[in-house]
Amino acid sequence: MKLKDIGEFGFIDRIAPLGSIRSDGVIKGIGDDCAVLSLAEDNYLLVTTDMLVEKVHFLLEWISAEELGAKSLAVNLSDIAACGGKPLDAFISIAVPDHIEIEWLDGFYRGMAEMARGFDVNLLGGDTTRSAGHLVINVALTGMVHRTELLLRSTAKPGDALVLTGPLGASAASVDLLRHKRIFPEEVEAPLIQAHFSPRPHVHEGRFLARSGVTTAAIDVSDGLSSDLNHICEQSKVGARVYADKLPALPALLTAAQLMNKGPLKWILHGGEDYVLLATVKRESVNALLQEANKEGIVLTVIGEVTDTGNAELVKTDGTVNALFPRGWDHFK
Amino acid sequence: MKLKDIGEFGFIDRIAPLGSIRSDGVIKGIGDDCAVLSLAEDNYLLVTTDMLVEKVHFLLEWISAEELGAKSLAVNLSDIAACGGKPLDAFISIAVPDHIEIEWLDGFYRGMAEMARGFDVNLLGGDTTRSAGHLVINVALTGMVHRTELLLRSTAKPGDALVLTGPLGASAASVDLLRHKRIFPEEVEAPLIQAHFSPRPHVHEGRFLARSGVTTAAIDVSDGLSSDLNHICEQSKVGARVYADKLPALPALLTAAQLMNKGPLKWILHGGEDYVLLATVKRESVNALLQEANKEGIVLTVIGEVTDTGNAELVKTDGTVNALFPRGWDHFK
Repeated sequence: MKLKDIGEFGFIDRIAPLGSIRSDGVIKGIGDDCAVLSLAEDNYLLVTTDMLVEKVHFLLEWISAEELGAKSLAVNLSDIAACGGKPLDAFISIAVPDHIEIEWLDGFYRGMAEMARGFDVNLLGGDTTRSAGHLVINVALTGMVHRTELLLRSTAKPGDALVLTGPLGASAASVDLLRHKRIFPEEVEAPLIQAHFSPRPHVHEGRFLARSGVTTAAIDVSDGLSSDLNHICEQSKVGARVYADKLPALPALLTAAQLMNKGPLKWILHGGEDYVLLATVKRESVNALLQEANKEGIVLTVIGEVTDTGNAELVKTDGTVNALFPRGWDHFK
Repeated sequence: MKLKDIGEFGFIDRIAPLGSIRSDGVIKGIGDDCAVLSLAEDNYLLVTTDMLVEKVHFLLEWISAEELGAKSLAVNLSDIAACGGKPLDAFISIAVPDHIEIEWLDGFYRGMAEMARGFDVNLLGGDTTRSAGHLVINVALTGMVHRTELLLRSTAKPGDALVLTGPLGASAASVDLLRHKRIFPEEVEAPLIQAHFSPRPHVHEGRFLARSGVTTAAIDVSDGLSSDLNHICEQSKVGARVYADKLPALPALLTAAQLMNKGPLKWILHGGEDYVLLATVKRESVNALLQEANKEGIVLTVIGEVTDTGNAELVKTDGTVNALFPRGWDHFK
């Protein structure tokens, strides 16, 4: 049997039970954006790790050293953000093929350090090794969150509002555009390209949602809205209803869709690598939260609600309701 | 310029200054076996990470899934041991090529979980991704140590005794034997093969040394004695004198050397992957410590002393003294 037969998430289910050796201090093990460990004085330690593999996650012909360094840290910052935490210290492992120049690596670490500075994060070590094949990067990142502010995937409640902290689909549109070697006007291309190569992790948005006291659950949209919403549904044992006409997207994305003569919904629903946060918020508090967010320069969009059906659904613009299956990213399927 | 022009350690020196963004709570950043972060109540959090790359660190033809899983965790446990810590939680990233079977992965995690159980460590998550090339594993491991028991590389003092917690060279001898396709009697081969494929991390030895109160510095011997001793000399700004006739080695190693018609000293001094601890201990306390260790089933060997010369030296069996240069493992040189 191969990994493609059971998929990444099937495999995680398979190995998760093996790992629980000791339960003291472990608030959340496998299955959320971060592991959550209890510290003294009512703080939890968060730990997350992400691996980026050449030819799978990135192509060296497409991404610059600085962008790759920044993005390798950003995708981990996004996981800390999804747990409502403040990021602390990063540990970088890198397997380097012989053809890579030191100057490229300097750029990689420069890009990463700039991202780190933006979020007051240390780069504290790791492992540098040779690769006999592709370039592989692994970042492990710690963070901290007060136990009353921890955001998990498993605590959404029927009736909650579904909220996004930013637009969807731009990263997927950018990959589509590059794959088909399409060239569009600068004002269309630039914001899409930036979303894919220089994603901004929503750490401030995560802290805002966590501090608010009315956010019930959160996840970062890395695999794609359909997959990540289904993670919340499964782990919270709830359903969800999302309205197609409420899903936020960049104007450039809608223009690109027209120019490519296709609908934008596939990018928006299943594209992935959006690195915005999907949160559930107490219904009665959502309007006040949106106003409060605006004051801090954070744009929240209500895209639907949590239900008790056990399934994720999409309400199309014509009013028809369809099941919303997880069709986002799975490395192996 | 390529990595081979400056080596792994040259590269670490190059990137280390980039990473220090924030100093609160950081006791030790880049440059020791673990990063050390301060926790409440006089405990430090330790974090270490190691990447294992196919064709560089292991060959799938040689190592079983179970052995590779156990060893991937063991090399990280060894770093926590070198800091005197108690290991806590491991986070495993793995990039899996298409040809790998689920059954192989099950074996990998089974081996890792058995090693984890042996040291009361949780496997709490990580990242599973596809590889378009080789198999790559990254483990990030946390640990904890009371601030009075932390062991670093930078705190050895002239006059201290140099102590090893186990024999050297067996792993390197095993690789030599396999590379040359030599077949020796079972009693010679088995202990060498085991040292390479199933190393036992010296966590108990590390805790013993840390608790003793008389250990001044420690490092795990992963790159090779000559390299790791030089790390202590550089970081503690001391010298060291090691006696060739005091260096501990398995009887099987000496037999293998005879059978292969070569001296064993190259394996012992520069081989690496020994995963024993090299510690410095206050001279006046070393005899009492050796006796105490014996009671706990730990065999310590005094191999020399810390000096104020600033250089590592080897005293050969004929009494001649030579400089002991770091000729152990560097991925790029």
